[in-house]
Amino acid sequence: MSVQHTCVAAQRASRVLAGLPRARKDEALGNVADALARRAAEILAENAEDVRLARENRLPDALVDRLLLDEDRLRDEAQSVRALAALPDPVGQLVDGWRLDNGIELRKVRVPLGVVAVIYEARPNVTVDAACLCLKTGNAVILRGGSAAMHSNRILSEVVQGAVIEAGLPREAVSYLTPDRRELDELLEQRRYVDLVIPRGGEDLKDYLMERSKVPVIFAAGGNCHVYVDAAADLDKAVPIIVNAKCQRPGVCNAAETLLVHRDVADELLPRAVEELKRRDVELVVDKAAAEVLGDPSLKRANKTHYETEFLALKLAVRVVDSLDEALEHIATYGTRHSEAIITEDLGAARRFTAAVDAACVYVNASTRFTDGGEFGLGAEMGISTQKLHVRGPIALQELTCVKYELWGDGQVRP
Amino acid sequence: MSVQHTCVAAQRASRVLAGLPRARKDEALGNVADALARRAAEILAENAEDVRLARENRLPDALVDRLLLDEDRLRDEAQSVRALAALPDPVGQLVDGWRLDNGIELRKVRVPLGVVAVIYEARPNVTVDAACLCLKTGNAVILRGGSAAMHSNRILSEVVQGAVIEAGLPREAVSYLTPDRRELDELLEQRRYVDLVIPRGGEDLKDYLMERSKVPVIFAAGGNCHVYVDAAADLDKAVPIIVNAKCQRPGVCNAAETLLVHRDVADELLPRAVEELKRRDVELVVDKAAAEVLGDPSLKRANKTHYETEFLALKLAVRVVDSLDEALEHIATYGTRHSEAIITEDLGAARRFTAAVDAACVYVNASTRFTDGGEFGLGAEMGISTQKLHVRGPIALQELTCVKYELWGDGQVRP
Repeated sequence: MSVQHTCVAAQRASRVLAGLPRARKDEALGNVADALARRAAEILAENAEDVRLARENRLPDALVDRLLLDEDRLRDEAQSVRALAALPDPVGQLVDGWRLDNGIELRKVRVPLGVVAVIYEARPNVTVDAACLCLKTGNAVILRGGSAAMHSNRILSEVVQGAVIEAGLPREAVSYLTPDRRELDELLEQRRYVDLVIPRGGEDLKDYLMERSKVPVIFAAGGNCHVYVDAAADLDKAVPIIVNAKCQRPGVCNAAETLLVHRDVADELLPRAVEELKRRDVELVVDKAAAEVLGDPSLKRANKTHYETEFLALKLAVRVVDSLDEALEHIATYGTRHSEAIITEDLGAARRFTAAVDAACVYVNASTRFTDGGEFGLGAEMGISTQKLHVRGPIALQELTCVKYELWGDGQVRP
Repeated sequence: MSVQHTCVAAQRASRVLAGLPRARKDEALGNVADALARRAAEILAENAEDVRLARENRLPDALVDRLLLDEDRLRDEAQSVRALAALPDPVGQLVDGWRLDNGIELRKVRVPLGVVAVIYEARPNVTVDAACLCLKTGNAVILRGGSAAMHSNRILSEVVQGAVIEAGLPREAVSYLTPDRRELDELLEQRRYVDLVIPRGGEDLKDYLMERSKVPVIFAAGGNCHVYVDAAADLDKAVPIIVNAKCQRPGVCNAAETLLVHRDVADELLPRAVEELKRRDVELVVDKAAAEVLGDPSLKRANKTHYETEFLALKLAVRVVDSLDEALEHIATYGTRHSEAIITEDLGAARRFTAAVDAACVYVNASTRFTDGGEFGLGAEMGISTQKLHVRGPIALQELTCVKYELWGDGQVRP
């Protein structure tokens, strides 16, 4: 079947899905959770083949770890599918409504997007997560995983598709493309049949899609996040927040990459923070002023490239600033509009920071690590959007829908 | 000044605009309205030059009419600017908010997009409309009008900019590019500084931007709209709605282009509707079944191309269908997801139609001509979006904003 045929069939299926009541969709999700348990041996056997090939091809250990499934991970996955089923259905929600002067009753109603394509790399759990988020929101999904997880993705797609068919939903609610570049290129042309592409991957994939995709794209992008310690900070809050934002899980987009410290508190804060960071093996790159405060000439000097880099590792840039304005300027220059934090007890500074910083999430006295659909109480999500259109922040259930205006009249014409 | 410099300056100005209270923005809008009156002579002199050149270059009369300003049109424009100032400010609106389990207070707040570029053709009123919509929503605007209105656009931009400066707002809140293709191409690369491009023009402009723009685009697109007269229609409602949807203003996107009639009512409806349409000089193209009902062999036969065409004129395609399903299939095939209407007294048919039709606006027993920000009670708008992401339907004030999550804590870290 050509990619276009797959997309046409997915669009046909999406029309059926759009009309389903919640119970039917949740039944399908329950079937998915059951099937993950029932077919665990099959899934793990296919996954073992991917892992074997990955090791043979000497892929990095971190990648092999992301690829690997085991009984525990499958059980967690099934659990998260059941949790998703328990969330409210956004479809059919009345977003707004009023009566026009002429008596027409206007209703703004939440409806599925239609067909959503998800492009991802070597995490087989995305196959299940993405398919289930789309099922829950009444969208048909087209999955396109990376070649390293090919065997795992194929069996997981089959498992999900089987569960969907068992619930009486159309087979084409879930489709799967092979990890072939030409198929991807053909997919990106299907604007007539595909409503949205969501890439889950690095900057290379993002650039590729930005260049080629005719289908609208929501980028679940990286984050170059900052913690700014203000002159009026409570340092007993600042130190644990810095440590948490950098170390709790350094490889993710909401981890902090640069620490900005107001000169007035640098003498007291920096030695305390650095001690805690060093205990956790964090590598530091510091500006001249921070190096002077710390009195350690062995520290590596921070430059523009460091400020621009999302380390995604136990590495942190440190810079001393003379004012809140200088911190804001730094964040405006180097930030990627993801998550930014100020530590302060000064209400005016907190208000200025939250107003002036242009980012999806702005924190006062809390760790940037909370930027997450689950932490926000939104349930599962497809990633964090740093763009401004359609969705900013977690791409959760509501963000996988759009609206439709219904207008109910009894013969009105425009004068 | 290079295009990139213009965009950088606009972004700097947008940071000031984002923090302004409503009163300051409305003051600037009041100044614009005053200046349109005070400087009317200057504006009309420049406009006369565009009109003279347009006539010299033998541009079509319809285009010259769209280009032409007079005292009445300027007075209407000033009036609509004052009406815009009277609308509520969407910026700062608390969209949602709750407390997380850990005590962090989450607020989802409406904020401006930043920098909006508007690309338009020969309507000088768009200069004022677009600039004022952006001012009201706290966005800096970059205007890029067509060459036919060059003199009018330049003076109107100056008038708006003067009014903005008079209110103490940054000059770069309003910028103007010349109608130069290279400048447009450079603008479309400025993803770092420009947050949104809105084209107001035909399909050629749309295709050009879809191919080239690195900046996100919202298309204010055309509409191939249908009126479907169901078996259970009240024909006393159907006939006036058909006439209104086709004739009240045929050159706009929410006018109907094809009439679909259920076979059961075709014998009674078609002669009545056609009589009214012919009295208004509507040219008809009809399918075989409709031609038989009407018994007029001189009627031109409708084909696929007619069904695909947005006539934007006193011309209507007519097709008899055997069922609601056939009507839905026709609309799914040929519709452009803009505005679609069913005429019926059957609740089940109305519910099926509103659920199944994939369009921005779906009408029951009312004319498609109501798809309009003003008619919906949303105030001024930038056009109608037929896309699904970010905005579907009127691009009004709220749609020119995005959201930001603010998270207020007192030391929370992620466990």
